[in-house]
Amino acid sequence: MRAVVMRPDSLSLEERPIPGPGPGQVLVKTLACGICGSDLHLYRHAQSFYDMGIAAGVPKEILDRGVVLGHEFVGEIVEFGPDTVQALETGARVLSVPFLSGDQERVPHGATPLIDGAYAEYFLLAEEFLLEIPDDLATEAAALTEPLAIGLHAVNSAAVAKQAVVLGCGPIGLAVVAALKSRGCAEIVASDLSSFRRDLAGQTGASVVVDANADTPFSHIDHSEPVTVYDCTGVSGMIDKSIQAVPGGSDIVVAGISHGQEAITPSIAISKEVTIRFVSFYEQDEFATALQMLASGKIHWQPWISGQVPLDKVAHTFESLETNAQHVKMLVVPSLNSVK
Amino acid sequence: MRAVVMRPDSLSLEERPIPGPGPGQVLVKTLACGICGSDLHLYRHAQSFYDMGIAAGVPKEILDRGVVLGHEFVGEIVEFGPDTVQALETGARVLSVPFLSGDQERVPHGATPLIDGAYAEYFLLAEEFLLEIPDDLATEAAALTEPLAIGLHAVNSAAVAKQAVVLGCGPIGLAVVAALKSRGCAEIVASDLSSFRRDLAGQTGASVVVDANADTPFSHIDHSEPVTVYDCTGVSGMIDKSIQAVPGGSDIVVAGISHGQEAITPSIAISKEVTIRFVSFYEQDEFATALQMLASGKIHWQPWISGQVPLDKVAHTFESLETNAQHVKMLVVPSLNSVK
Repeated sequence: MRAVVMRPDSLSLEERPIPGPGPGQVLVKTLACGICGSDLHLYRHAQSFYDMGIAAGVPKEILDRGVVLGHEFVGEIVEFGPDTVQALETGARVLSVPFLSGDQERVPHGATPLIDGAYAEYFLLAEEFLLEIPDDLATEAAALTEPLAIGLHAVNSAAVAKQAVVLGCGPIGLAVVAALKSRGCAEIVASDLSSFRRDLAGQTGASVVVDANADTPFSHIDHSEPVTVYDCTGVSGMIDKSIQAVPGGSDIVVAGISHGQEAITPSIAISKEVTIRFVSFYEQDEFATALQMLASGKIHWQPWISGQVPLDKVAHTFESLETNAQHVKMLVVPSLNSVK
Repeated sequence: MRAVVMRPDSLSLEERPIPGPGPGQVLVKTLACGICGSDLHLYRHAQSFYDMGIAAGVPKEILDRGVVLGHEFVGEIVEFGPDTVQALETGARVLSVPFLSGDQERVPHGATPLIDGAYAEYFLLAEEFLLEIPDDLATEAAALTEPLAIGLHAVNSAAVAKQAVVLGCGPIGLAVVAALKSRGCAEIVASDLSSFRRDLAGQTGASVVVDANADTPFSHIDHSEPVTVYDCTGVSGMIDKSIQAVPGGSDIVVAGISHGQEAITPSIAISKEVTIRFVSFYEQDEFATALQMLASGKIHWQPWISGQVPLDKVAHTFESLETNAQHVKMLVVPSLNSVK
């Protein structure tokens, strides 16, 4: 089968054997897999993650297998491994939290050489985590379950305030807007540098949309009440800007991944009694809720899908996503034929 | 009356008129007033606070009145102002949250030139906030109500985990240890550079006491469970050290005031889903609870009192507190005569 393999200095299409499902596992054919900001992040820092692996004592022969990225997947059941219940049938459309086991030490799909992700024609899932996709939900929509679960988890991590500020309207920011709207938040002020993404935030449910080039979302909130800020930018400096700008008693939920260190001002945070909640990963019930939210038809997800690419265009798409703010969610679709 | 007045470059004894109580106010004779780390902080940065006042448009004639510090006070009612209920009698021993009004924009005692604190023979309180001190509670113990309320508030700000780490065993750290113990926390690991303070932490209820010169408290916790860290040091860098050291899902409560900016590592905080709670000020019910805790006799407060000084020794005591880790809580007692 064809698989996109990340190495310290490359992201390239390789031929690999179709994996055989082990006990409790299911072989799945990839229908679609979203490209996540964390995939771009892993690729950007691939050499340093490789070096960290070496430093941590991971055998070189394992690291040299490379990483098959991809954890926002939708697939179709092809084959059941031993010790499976087989409550679903071959051909069923499914997705799952991106883990092969429920152990404490669970290793995610598509982040290490140990468990391949879905930038490939086939991959493995744990039967115990399978969720069937409702018939009337498009595969493209189902592929948004994972990023929506991230946004839902960010929103669930703090009490939903009367007013929210969403910094950054990429996939996670839009998921946060959608989750806030579904949780009944009345005043959602969203900001982004890109007019394209601002438009999407408005379509997704933001009450006020602010051009981050020219204005601050904090000039659009009521400063006599706490606000919950969702930092979905991954841009260094946003946490301290938020500390400086929020009313007393506010929460800052940090969902965007940034690299390295950044400076904050504790004396101001203390005087305002600010809470900073760093969030990353949803629980399984949040993942199932995200799928239900998409299936309910209440989320206007269509504009989030910016395009679909075949496996041999993944590397090129990664390069363009680094600079292109006209994209929200690109899907890798192995069945697509590359247009030469 | 005599009052200790802070100016940008001095802390000195001055003669001032005894203030007259306004409507709803009570004139109180100072029995004791604790020296707080925030008083030292204000004095250390007195010039910059003065400059900030000028920059903020505060009239120079107000700033030039100077600041009478002192907000950890115990007093005795001397005289009631107009419009008072007078449920208590003249001579009653009282304390109160350090505010003259319950307005949103409340200005604390002893932090600005607007409301004088209790480093003086007399000061003013709001009758509505008065709490009478039980007869069998020593004045020295009652003077610990305010710092204990700070510790109690820090502990109330997060769910009490099975295990807690208390960084810094000054007055706030000890108050946190006492509050954690009263809330039933089983495993309290406290660390400090000073053996004197470590001994006090053990006497106050810490299960494990760690010498911060040689060891880290994080080597004494169970890393399979979240921990709540209480940073009571005010030392720059402790937040990031805690982020690096805690197990996933942990809380870091920051109660120590530091100056300027400090660096944190969001990527690690995100991967561990760490929450950082910056806390400063108790609610009125927490203040009342702190007084009750002291009155209950369950807090071994005696070793916290390091000494008592008359008004004319305050400046000297400030200097020595900057370097002396053998002190916990020094009380200013205006009735003491200075030993020449």
